[in-house]
Amino acid sequence: METELLKVYGDRKSQPTRAILIFCKVNGIRFEEVEIRLFTSDVQTPEYQAIHPLKKVPAVAYGDFTLFESHAILTYLACWYQVPDHWYPADLRKRAKVQSVLDWHHTTLRYGSTRYLINTVLAPTFGKTPSPQAAAEYEQTLVQSLSTIETLWLKGDSKFLLGNDQPSVADLALVCEIMQLHMIPDEERKRIIGPFKKVQQWIANIKEATNPHFDEIHQHLFDAIASSKQNTA
Amino acid sequence: METELLKVYGDRKSQPTRAILIFCKVNGIRFEEVEIRLFTSDVQTPEYQAIHPLKKVPAVAYGDFTLFESHAILTYLACWYQVPDHWYPADLRKRAKVQSVLDWHHTTLRYGSTRYLINTVLAPTFGKTPSPQAAAEYEQTLVQSLSTIETLWLKGDSKFLLGNDQPSVADLALVCEIMQLHMIPDEERKRIIGPFKKVQQWIANIKEATNPHFDEIHQHLFDAIASSKQNTA
Repeated sequence: METELLKVYGDRKSQPTRAILIFCKVNGIRFEEVEIRLFTSDVQTPEYQAIHPLKKVPAVAYGDFTLFESHAILTYLACWYQVPDHWYPADLRKRAKVQSVLDWHHTTLRYGSTRYLINTVLAPTFGKTPSPQAAAEYEQTLVQSLSTIETLWLKGDSKFLLGNDQPSVADLALVCEIMQLHMIPDEERKRIIGPFKKVQQWIANIKEATNPHFDEIHQHLFDAIASSKQNTA
Repeated sequence: METELLKVYGDRKSQPTRAILIFCKVNGIRFEEVEIRLFTSDVQTPEYQAIHPLKKVPAVAYGDFTLFESHAILTYLACWYQVPDHWYPADLRKRAKVQSVLDWHHTTLRYGSTRYLINTVLAPTFGKTPSPQAAAEYEQTLVQSLSTIETLWLKGDSKFLLGNDQPSVADLALVCEIMQLHMIPDEERKRIIGPFKKVQQWIANIKEATNPHFDEIHQHLFDAIASSKQNTA
């Protein structure tokens, strides 16, 4: 039945795409990466719309089975490939806690982070004028989210979220989101993340737990940022 | 071990609270409902903050085990109580599709709906002035979300989302969100929902599948709306 190879559709500049790619590589899941470049005609083709009708990234396909929404993909892959339990625990209560962080992510960290970027460095990409007022508002949400990670999800001295000594899919999803802040000038990023020492250590812990894949997959983002800075210099 | 009774903390005026209460009642789950009134000191007590440190509703507790984020709660309860499979299928691919709708909900329907309400009828509650410009923007997101439900999630002639003939937790979560639009004047609500015939039929299907609990739990919302209209008349 399962002769088809998993296909992962995405753009390494997209934080949820990177989370899925790192997850697959760390867990030795065989897959074909299909680049779907954001803000290009790649998302508009009938072939891609059959996979992701909402024309976004990432998505996965396994023969006729297609799936989008990165959290749903991560938890599906964790179960389907029976990866080590810490990624998405079989214990219902531990699993529920991971799911709670994933749900929290949507409306807090991810909400603040993406809208902060859209109202600053990404404004031209979205055909918008950067809005300092909106940026300040979303920065507040972003900072509150980092504070919640620091004081609630990283409570105690554990290396990862929820008091765990090994990462879950929630750690990976959230850290990939925070890495997106490398798009803004270094001094801005340091101003925002600087006060959160545990968050910084946790990012280092995730890198360590998932390298060399973490760095390899993020290199594409860093290259794109460097190229963009050169073009606007 | 499980001598403790499940406690459900929430406010029936909150759409995710209602989804959990209806889910428990439909599935014959024994629980104690603890009213935590939104926008009151109920969410500020140390006792409640030990359950929901972010001071929101809903939350559940089972002895020492506490959980918040309504989607995480719904999927946890479905597994813990082994409710009929259609609510949250054991089949990994069917489950992943339900999870995909739940994730989609966060950033689309729920995002548009709650912000539309905050910028219209709920503005005074949030200490804001209603903003027609913001309301128009979020109405667009809301309408796009209803359109996605109509054309993508309700594709075909099935009674429920994803081509199913029985509801999942995603159906319940999304319909409770849409029911919140009863807070706005009838003509506004009809203007927004009117064009979406399948969505309207689907709401009726969910009611039918979960009554008398659906109506009973929603009555509190309707009473609050009636009382609010009387006060402002």
